[in-house]
Amino acid sequence: MEDMEYRFQRMSEIEKRIASSKDYRLVSREFKPEDTVIEIDGAEIGAERIAVAAGPCSVENEEQVMETARSIKRSGAVMLRGGAFKPRTSVYSFQGLGEDGLKILAKAREETGLPVVTETMSSDTVRLVAKYADVLQIGCRNIQNYPLLTEVGKSDKPAVLKRGFNTTLQEFLLSAEYIMAHGNPNVILCERGIRTFETMTRNTFDLSAVPILKKLSHLPVMADPSHATGKRDLIMPMSRAAIAAGTDSLIIEVHPTPERALSDGAQSLHLHEFEEMMEAVRPVARSIGREL
Amino acid sequence: MEDMEYRFQRMSEIEKRIASSKDYRLVSREFKPEDTVIEIDGAEIGAERIAVAAGPCSVENEEQVMETARSIKRSGAVMLRGGAFKPRTSVYSFQGLGEDGLKILAKAREETGLPVVTETMSSDTVRLVAKYADVLQIGCRNIQNYPLLTEVGKSDKPAVLKRGFNTTLQEFLLSAEYIMAHGNPNVILCERGIRTFETMTRNTFDLSAVPILKKLSHLPVMADPSHATGKRDLIMPMSRAAIAAGTDSLIIEVHPTPERALSDGAQSLHLHEFEEMMEAVRPVARSIGREL
Amino acid sequence: MEDMEYRFQRMSEIEKRIASSKDYRLVSREFKPEDTVIEIDGAEIGAERIAVAAGPCSVENEEQVMETARSIKRSGAVMLRGGAFKPRTSVYSFQGLGEDGLKILAKAREETGLPVVTETMSSDTVRLVAKYADVLQIGCRNIQNYPLLTEVGKSDKPAVLKRGFNTTLQEFLLSAEYIMAHGNPNVILCERGIRTFETMTRNTFDLSAVPILKKLSHLPVMADPSHATGKRDLIMPMSRAAIAAGTDSLIIEVHPTPERALSDGAQSLHLHEFEEMMEAVRPVARSIGREL
Amino acid sequence: MEDMEYRFQRMSEIEKRIASSKDYRLVSREFKPEDTVIEIDGAEIGAERIAVAAGPCSVENEEQVMETARSIKRSGAVMLRGGAFKPRTSVYSFQGLGEDGLKILAKAREETGLPVVTETMSSDTVRLVAKYADVLQIGCRNIQNYPLLTEVGKSDKPAVLKRGFNTTLQEFLLSAEYIMAHGNPNVILCERGIRTFETMTRNTFDLSAVPILKKLSHLPVMADPSHATGKRDLIMPMSRAAIAAGTDSLIIEVHPTPERALSDGAQSLHLHEFEEMMEAVRPVARSIGREL
Repeated sequence: MEDMEYRFQRMSEIEKRIASSKDYRLVSREFKPEDTVIEIDGAEIGAERIAVAAGPCSVENEEQVMETARSIKRSGAVMLRGGAFKPRTSVYSFQGLGEDGLKILAKAREETGLPVVTETMSSDTVRLVAKYADVLQIGCRNIQNYPLLTEVGKSDKPAVLKRGFNTTLQEFLLSAEYIMAHGNPNVILCERGIRTFETMTRNTFDLSAVPILKKLSHLPVMADPSHATGKRDLIMPMSRAAIAAGTDSLIIEVHPTPERALSDGAQSLHLHEFEEMMEAVRPVARSIGREL
Repeated sequence: MEDMEYRFQRMSEIEKRIASSKDYRLVSREFKPEDTVIEIDGAEIGAERIAVAAGPCSVENEEQVMETARSIKRSGAVMLRGGAFKPRTSVYSFQGLGEDGLKILAKAREETGLPVVTETMSSDTVRLVAKYADVLQIGCRNIQNYPLLTEVGKSDKPAVLKRGFNTTLQEFLLSAEYIMAHGNPNVILCERGIRTFETMTRNTFDLSAVPILKKLSHLPVMADPSHATGKRDLIMPMSRAAIAAGTDSLIIEVHPTPERALSDGAQSLHLHEFEEMMEAVRPVARSIGREL
Repeated sequence: MEDMEYRFQRMSEIEKRIASSKDYRLVSREFKPEDTVIEIDGAEIGAERIAVAAGPCSVENEEQVMETARSIKRSGAVMLRGGAFKPRTSVYSFQGLGEDGLKILAKAREETGLPVVTETMSSDTVRLVAKYADVLQIGCRNIQNYPLLTEVGKSDKPAVLKRGFNTTLQEFLLSAEYIMAHGNPNVILCERGIRTFETMTRNTFDLSAVPILKKLSHLPVMADPSHATGKRDLIMPMSRAAIAAGTDSLIIEVHPTPERALSDGAQSLHLHEFEEMMEAVRPVARSIGREL
Repeated sequence: MEDMEYRFQRMSEIEKRIASSKDYRLVSREFKPEDTVIEIDGAEIGAERIAVAAGPCSVENEEQVMETARSIKRSGAVMLRGGAFKPRTSVYSFQGLGEDGLKILAKAREETGLPVVTETMSSDTVRLVAKYADVLQIGCRNIQNYPLLTEVGKSDKPAVLKRGFNTTLQEFLLSAEYIMAHGNPNVILCERGIRTFETMTRNTFDLSAVPILKKLSHLPVMADPSHATGKRDLIMPMSRAAIAAGTDSLIIEVHPTPERALSDGAQSLHLHEFEEMMEAVRPVARSIGREL
């Protein structure tokens, strides 16, 4: 490995820079030593209890969302996730239901009480999404979309900021700083896998990011094993691992019929699988002194 | 290397998919076998003559831009590049002059006749930038900013689409398809380096992308050795290499006083260095039957 | 992410190929459905109890090794690791004590009863190392050193095969197949981090590899958080995470005085830190029905 | 891109370290400012004339090798390459003809006068290979096989050292230093592609390595477009690009009937394609003041 003494030196130098640089001001532990706990109506992120968000990749119709919301609530999830505006690689793919999708999510919240996390894709739709959502999600492709970060920074809704699949942890924190510098103190840092040469998983789940982010920043950390691995049978073991590594929150893709999902079916859990997963991870949370 | 027979099979399978998939319709050679030549007032991209765009990373003031524009024109550049809206990793860095910067660029065009390439960072500023620019640049961080791609697709100005440092060639072409599907046929595909483990260069200049893109697509290709390498002394050899690999165009960072540049100084050429570079690369263009 | 339907399809296709290909014969679950448990004098790898190997990067002198061996045994380690032949990037660095180092390791085994894991670097020293070692380690730089794999395959000592920092899981399994095809059924697959663009850690700890390897192969899995992260303060959380992900074994760098270590000091735990780590990870093992 | 000022600073810091560190002593330009020219019976590497080595991946039989040798000589190649000992990912693949293959290569040299480049895979076969070969090749999987580097360092035959697909340029130079420190001054540094996330090519051809290596070291540089790209139709443009970037030498896979090759057929040129390629690249060499 190149010149390790030099490399080790550089690694701790990076930590020192983050601690002292004015570019990482609001996000850093030096600025705010105690953990940030984000209170959302009905959920807390960053507290002792690990908060689980779950739901489908895309909002497809009301029935799908209502069935999912009821089921995940019974299993112990505290937030509902679902996409109404979908960033799709192909211009010819299903792009989401838009505002109609947001309305469906709001209806599910009304019935179940679960706060809603949903994505906003551009600076000019932040207000529209914030009208319905409890938490604004910034997707991994928009981690350096500075006009969007700025606009979310002006919102009074908390934000889930997903690490880009190509983003260093330094850049990730600098993007969080954008949001905070514009006035929004409630940012959740979500690790969702990085792009590497390995092809057995969709991305490589960088779980070391969890304790590193907790050390450098006071912000709560979320982990997304669904997007990181892309494989249904890895969700349970990697959720356990994320909890053991110290994450404050999980976000999981769940669908009543993954085989028929309009997107990301191969990585979505069935409703009963999600229930089993929650049972399977709970003892790990307890073993490190947390609840779920 | 894993199982090479399988890998080789997969590589040609990818080419076949691109040729037949409806997701890659407008960008593909199957759709349009002959090369696209984009005509801009005073420049052609994709024709026999290799088109060189040059200029500073950021527009800093009128004097800097005018001096640069006059000098690069004498050296043989056919377009002026310069950033007025700057995507910056740190929220506390210089973010560009905005519309004032656009006006300076327009003034330089007026005097020198050089068409202007400049970046637009969000869907809601495309019109503003298009008012002043001849070519809209989409930066590497916005390669999957679909609202922006859509808006540029509705513009009548040609676009330089920079490959993300994390973007596969398949994704790159799918992003170009977004622009074309919304009505804009004039897209220039710009290779500017990808993120790898190597740290001696800013990114890794993926020159194989040039002949691959020329084979799969009819769109003209541009190469950006400045951002790809991040090192002044690599610009000349890597410009030569890009031309030899078949690029239709180069984009080069040039500054009257790189030592004092507000951004990217270490990779910018002095005006006289740019002149020398143009002399040095011209014979390579001729050796493969092109001009510059 | 390129074309996800295609990518998901490809991922499960890879699994099917591994299950059916003759290239992955002896390593695969299809060949041997039940877990392989490797019995070493005094330790079992792959059984219910998670086996922990610990010790210094390099054997430096007798006192260092004896002190370490006694201490890690008290803390619950079941194997002693230490390098006598050291692969060093610079030809001018300390290259290990060679056979003298092996003798020190053997002496520590004699006193403590801990079996010894140590590296063999070339086919012509396998026999010499096997004379002293209980388990032969193949380092990450030698993952595709086929003459070495072949020679270890002819040995009657179990092998720890470290994944190269550049090795796909497919290649990793193919290298294990080399050892098994030459007659040695006792291979331990060790994940130790892969090389990515992220620079905050020495490598990126690919913990998804753990459940994937357990699914595709019957061989026991080991995890090495010391080399994967390169940072002392990440060892505990990432050991917990590795256990939660399902590893059968851990290997940890420990040194009486890391500040004065001849190699890898920044990632080595003090003896008392190792003791604390063992206490901290034990509840996680229990929470998933295992011991440690 | 993280914090560019810092990154640029780090890049030039790396160059300074290489220039001053005792770990990079014999390889560096500071140690020996003038270019090293390696004289082999019938060929010079590092001189004005660009030296081309060509031949099959594996030696399969006498007829294949003789036909190839005669043909490539007519086309202008000055060395014959071919593998007798083959590192194969699968233990069940064809592993090369061994010494019989070396004898066939020697016979081809006898008839054509072309010196022979062939791979040695382990320290204990260096002497055997050196008995027949004019240049010893160290494959990319062995770039950090230190016992092998040491043994080649003791040989009086020049060495082609292939960069690992996972190797930084710093590590690459440190491996060359191993060979030189053991007495062998004649090392050729061969760029052959690095492993990245891009899947359209076998590896990513890192051509920036060419001018960087020429700047930091006095050793001659070789480029291998066959392994870097893995695609027959990229060999010509990428050979041109490598020459334009300043390589001293090329190594190209050629086979009389690639469709029937026992390995690497998809990236091998037909004999007539090689002839055409040589014609196509010659003007590029001349355009930068070199011959071929």
